[in-house]
Amino acid sequence: MNRTLNKKRRRRSIIAFEMIRLDRTADEPLYQQLYRQIRDELVSGNFDSNSSRLPSSRTLAADLGVARLTVKLAFEKLHAEGYLRARTRSGTFVADSLPETFLSPRQPKTEPQIVRAARLSDRVKDIPDKRVGKQFDLGIAGAPGVSFVPALAALDEFPIEVWERLRAQVLARKGAHLLQYASSHGDPDLRKAIAAYLSDFRGARCHPDQIVVTAGTQQAMMISAMALVNRGEVAWIEDPGFYQARRAFGFAGATVVPRPVDEEGIVIGRPSKERSPKIIYVTPSHQFPLGMTMSLARRTALIDFAQTHDAFIFEDDHNSEFRFTGPPLPCLQGLDNSGRVIYAGTMSKILYPSLRLGYILAPEQLVEPMIKIRAVMDQHSSAIDQATLARFLDEGFFLSHIKRMRKLYSERREFFIEEFNTLLSEHFLLQIPEAGLHFVAWLRQKTDLPLITRVCAEVGIRPSPLSSCFIKAELNPALTFGFAAWSRAQIREGLFKFASALKRNGVTHSCPSS
Amino acid sequence: MNRTLNKKRRRRSIIAFEMIRLDRTADEPLYQQLYRQIRDELVSGNFDSNSSRLPSSRTLAADLGVARLTVKLAFEKLHAEGYLRARTRSGTFVADSLPETFLSPRQPKTEPQIVRAARLSDRVKDIPDKRVGKQFDLGIAGAPGVSFVPALAALDEFPIEVWERLRAQVLARKGAHLLQYASSHGDPDLRKAIAAYLSDFRGARCHPDQIVVTAGTQQAMMISAMALVNRGEVAWIEDPGFYQARRAFGFAGATVVPRPVDEEGIVIGRPSKERSPKIIYVTPSHQFPLGMTMSLARRTALIDFAQTHDAFIFEDDHNSEFRFTGPPLPCLQGLDNSGRVIYAGTMSKILYPSLRLGYILAPEQLVEPMIKIRAVMDQHSSAIDQATLARFLDEGFFLSHIKRMRKLYSERREFFIEEFNTLLSEHFLLQIPEAGLHFVAWLRQKTDLPLITRVCAEVGIRPSPLSSCFIKAELNPALTFGFAAWSRAQIREGLFKFASALKRNGVTHSCPSS
Repeated sequence: MNRTLNKKRRRRSIIAFEMIRLDRTADEPLYQQLYRQIRDELVSGNFDSNSSRLPSSRTLAADLGVARLTVKLAFEKLHAEGYLRARTRSGTFVADSLPETFLSPRQPKTEPQIVRAARLSDRVKDIPDKRVGKQFDLGIAGAPGVSFVPALAALDEFPIEVWERLRAQVLARKGAHLLQYASSHGDPDLRKAIAAYLSDFRGARCHPDQIVVTAGTQQAMMISAMALVNRGEVAWIEDPGFYQARRAFGFAGATVVPRPVDEEGIVIGRPSKERSPKIIYVTPSHQFPLGMTMSLARRTALIDFAQTHDAFIFEDDHNSEFRFTGPPLPCLQGLDNSGRVIYAGTMSKILYPSLRLGYILAPEQLVEPMIKIRAVMDQHSSAIDQATLARFLDEGFFLSHIKRMRKLYSERREFFIEEFNTLLSEHFLLQIPEAGLHFVAWLRQKTDLPLITRVCAEVGIRPSPLSSCFIKAELNPALTFGFAAWSRAQIREGLFKFASALKRNGVTHSCPSS
Repeated sequence: MNRTLNKKRRRRSIIAFEMIRLDRTADEPLYQQLYRQIRDELVSGNFDSNSSRLPSSRTLAADLGVARLTVKLAFEKLHAEGYLRARTRSGTFVADSLPETFLSPRQPKTEPQIVRAARLSDRVKDIPDKRVGKQFDLGIAGAPGVSFVPALAALDEFPIEVWERLRAQVLARKGAHLLQYASSHGDPDLRKAIAAYLSDFRGARCHPDQIVVTAGTQQAMMISAMALVNRGEVAWIEDPGFYQARRAFGFAGATVVPRPVDEEGIVIGRPSKERSPKIIYVTPSHQFPLGMTMSLARRTALIDFAQTHDAFIFEDDHNSEFRFTGPPLPCLQGLDNSGRVIYAGTMSKILYPSLRLGYILAPEQLVEPMIKIRAVMDQHSSAIDQATLARFLDEGFFLSHIKRMRKLYSERREFFIEEFNTLLSEHFLLQIPEAGLHFVAWLRQKTDLPLITRVCAEVGIRPSPLSSCFIKAELNPALTFGFAAWSRAQIREGLFKFASALKRNGVTHSCPSS
């Protein structure tokens, strides 16, 4: 009798289940295949409209030769998405209105577009370097193995399980509140924790209200430039310097004036009144990319200059945490008693870049304008991430992670220096900075650059040409090598491969000592 | 003998443990209090430098009268942060260099700052409304109970546990790769999922490459304005309209020209050549704040106008998913075959606002410039959140959540209408839009506005005055009430409290039907 009933139901079934083809060798789970095929049938409208009943999961499972659970999972999904409805005891039915029709009908695609070239804004046309925006798409992140790309951190060492545990805790404690719109100023607990860290460990002078949470240093630069610079006003940038700073200040309308650097840091000089800078971008802890620490004399001179010329200093304090020789100088901001320094820090190098969290420690009078800009630009940062970070700082994980990474990086750094000098000293002079996650390696023979660049591509490593940081600077050719993200074995393997390929390609020079 | 040894050790202990005061009634756990007090002693330098040994956890626990675990936890934390080191079998010692000195010495705070007023950029001074940036600090998010703030969604209904499960899955699958710098274009899986959703359910024409992931609609507007508008070029904005659009376009340098709206949507008119818009901001699915749907005739006319005048249309498709009567019109973008429409969507209303994820569906030729701008402004969105969202879409949770919320909102909406009309129809005429999460309630007596505003503050509800959306528009006074975030009981309670307070304050008018 059961058998007869089944047949009956099957005859009245809405869909031609004979059409269903399940592929057991596919990656897609069976229930997902079944779900997809039923859904497509329903959406196509290609079914018997005299009935909306589906066969029971038992019948269908038997007919298709699959487990009943497979059918149940597919039905559940269709039900959750509104394609099916269940009537108690009387079976499963197609919903009266399918989600597709409920939302909107599928649109037929029409003829190709007739497009006129867009008149773009000048600021977009002025962004230097067409590659910007593509830089990370090109595989920095995805590159497997050792690439020596500068500025990569050892992310496999990040205690993501601790992070996720703290995240669960803040979600449990604050619940739906954390899902809501949040402050453009930043999470108060986080601002407090950052302010405490900066006073304790960076010698900064700050109150939590002076902290403005950002989506990283890039946004910190953009907000600062937007707050201060009118079109055509001058921004000084170290040259060589951080190319993203040049882009940010230029994008905000500033006339970017490159300033040379010497062993003490940015060279100040005496500008004419109309070339006097409104904002000065510097990296005092660790000049990017050359690695010098700005001297105390230069720091004081720079602050005096800013006071006299009514300028602001943007202190990008990247990598100050990763210093390997001697005690660090406190930050520039801590020396300033005239509210001229905008200090910016980021979690990208200490924790992980895709978190997109950083902060500005701003002079009091800039706080309110910066919050306004953040609100107009993109509102605020993820509230859950901010609350999690506050806990990560408060519970001491932040300091212990820095400490652990400093030790690891210190070992990798020494290993890199040793291996590099053993294998490659005939081609390069390695410059050893006190801090940071990369080295500058100067070519011993300037004319080798094209060949060396080709060899890098051949062996799949991607040290960055120093020239990508030049505006007007004309320094000798060099490559910058990141070392922090790879194990000693990987560093050895990468450098060995590189050295062998150089030899194979005929790049040989007598050892400088011979 | 053990006792003697303990005494000996205690005598040689580095810290005066007699100073430690643990408060069993405090919220702070005992181990945390102990940790903090030991740390402060160590950092203060106020200890016996002849020994760096600490007493054993057993001894200290006995002396302080706490569990040994409490001491162990405190020591572990001090150890993790680098204050202590353990020598096997010989006890616990203070680290040779404390983290504070390792990083940087504490700075004495100096005299108050001498500050000169900052010369801010014009664009910051031009941001309309001083409250911007403060708006969410003022407690929109934190307000407990029913506030009727417009645009709040029912976040307690968001399946955060599903979201967190998918997050754990993508982390397990992709690991450290998700922590790395990511694409400024957006996660490819996410762009694919969004493109599929838009073609299937919004009638859009799109390829995944045309999707640019953003931090929400605010950033979508900012990126679009930055890509197209030079200082002084014209942006049309609906009036009344979305105040954040006005701020974004103005901030990018546009001269914002308000355009009136009628029952079919934005009124187009014939601008002079120099007042011809470069970009036109519209909300076709659900005019913000009035709620009309743009007619098909107006849509076609608008696209024709954009083609003729070489303008771009910014289609803010907010809340199109929450439509309660009849089938939705497909989006404007789907009607356009000349690449004139920039379509923007957000997850803020469908999922949750603090996620900060949205997207632009851009004409092909604007994609590259927009990616560049994103890279210069703030690089990219959180890679983990993007990957999680891609799964949420792919697995069908997105559609089922929309469906569930539409049902819930529909019920709340009908309940609100009924209650409001019963309790408040003598004071307000409720306008009922086809979509969206708020109502416009027009005052029957214009002169009541100040008193009604006072009553709102008195009872702690915060419907938004319609006038906050006016640029030049001079419509009658009205309040906009959000209804979606509160249960029926809360809605009834809030409206009842409001109606009673109006009565108490003498705001009584004869019922319009009498």
